[in-house]
Amino acid sequence: MKFCRVLWEDKICYATHDGDHLSIVEGNPYAEWRTTILHLGVDGARFFPPCIPTKIVAIGRNYRDHAAELGNDVPREPLIFLKPPSALIGHDQDIVYPPQSKRVDYEGELGVVMGKRAHGLKDASEAQAAIFGYTIINDVTARDLQKADVQFTRAKGFDTFCPVGPFIETLLDPTNVLVETYVNGERRQHASTSNMAFGVNTLVQYISNIMTLEPGDLISTGTPAGIGPMQRGDVVEVKIDLIGTLRNRVV
Amino acid sequence: MKFCRVLWEDKICYATHDGDHLSIVEGNPYAEWRTTILHLGVDGARFFPPCIPTKIVAIGRNYRDHAAELGNDVPREPLIFLKPPSALIGHDQDIVYPPQSKRVDYEGELGVVMGKRAHGLKDASEAQAAIFGYTIINDVTARDLQKADVQFTRAKGFDTFCPVGPFIETLLDPTNVLVETYVNGERRQHASTSNMAFGVNTLVQYISNIMTLEPGDLISTGTPAGIGPMQRGDVVEVKIDLIGTLRNRVV
Repeated sequence: MKFCRVLWEDKICYATHDGDHLSIVEGNPYAEWRTTILHLGVDGARFFPPCIPTKIVAIGRNYRDHAAELGNDVPREPLIFLKPPSALIGHDQDIVYPPQSKRVDYEGELGVVMGKRAHGLKDASEAQAAIFGYTIINDVTARDLQKADVQFTRAKGFDTFCPVGPFIETLLDPTNVLVETYVNGERRQHASTSNMAFGVNTLVQYISNIMTLEPGDLISTGTPAGIGPMQRGDVVEVKIDLIGTLRNRVV
Repeated sequence: MKFCRVLWEDKICYATHDGDHLSIVEGNPYAEWRTTILHLGVDGARFFPPCIPTKIVAIGRNYRDHAAELGNDVPREPLIFLKPPSALIGHDQDIVYPPQSKRVDYEGELGVVMGKRAHGLKDASEAQAAIFGYTIINDVTARDLQKADVQFTRAKGFDTFCPVGPFIETLLDPTNVLVETYVNGERRQHASTSNMAFGVNTLVQYISNIMTLEPGDLISTGTPAGIGPMQRGDVVEVKIDLIGTLRNRVV
């Protein structure tokens, strides 16, 4: 089942995606909900981030080849950092290049959307049960500021630096899906999630033993090798098998 | 004017503080509001965090003497990081010592509460106009994990690691107030905010040019020298002139 959030009669609504159309949802996808008879086409839809997270937890250096390309080892425990909710944008919304940076990179990533409040999860099975579904994230990063600041917060926290969506797929085995990033149609990143150092359930369990996760909270699971800069005017697409394609222009 | 959030007939409500009693508020303190004739005593009140931030932006190494005590220089620009909203607790709620750490420190800090959506503020006067008021924060930190991780997120992000309140004082000149931290009644930190490397308006302006700030968002302005560990059973109080005292027990 695919969920998204779209504009419908001047309101932002949850919808399900089914073939070539979207069905507006009544209720709360994380609790009780049903589709209505209101439909709209996918092509004309205006998408918003598919979930409303109270926090966005991201993972650094979770693919060996990406850690190596920046001269780092994979850490012994997951390396976590936060992106602010103010950075969220949806599919087809614009990434704004900030004047403070001279090098802004794409980072295509699998996103995990939490379905239940989760604290102190004990094992992979408890972690899996707390997950709602999977989405696509571009963990946009001002690489020059990341190096200068040490802390990642500014470099990864600018407004529009967290494109996400358009869909959450609730029925997905996240252990071996292909993550690809394209800039102006040219493929720059491609790797299977099977190359992650720490898998999805391990990450969810680890984070839940630090901070309570809420329904709709987002976890961005790290990027594979092939990161690189974007220029104003570029169109960046992150594709993940069975979820879809997240497309954004840089302005 | 002092605002807080307290339990009233099983609901969490805004209230104003006036002498020895609290008056329940109707409406939204960030827009239109009025006090009601419903009063309760300060002594019996159960306090919650006085604001509901979408994000908590904290500042590292903003007092020269504290930067020096950890062997660091004051950075040329403000050093920002994020604490998750899941870390928030109120006055008299308990700080939970996590099993992952062997050294958990207090850090008494002046907190800034935003009053308006703010993006791209141009100067100190615009920054000041976007501020709602000032509160007290204990930026609790697992010092051993902070050193091990480099990124501050885990060390400063555990549940209960952001005590805040009990009050927001809207009428305060934040440029020269005394910040003090006491452990079991013994004073461990004391400094004037006049010793900050970057003042409140500079911080608000700086952050607003990275990420949009929302009403209720919190900025923790950094801690002075004298940081140190807390043990289970300790009572930690952070006092700021004209705002009040934030008290929490470590369990």
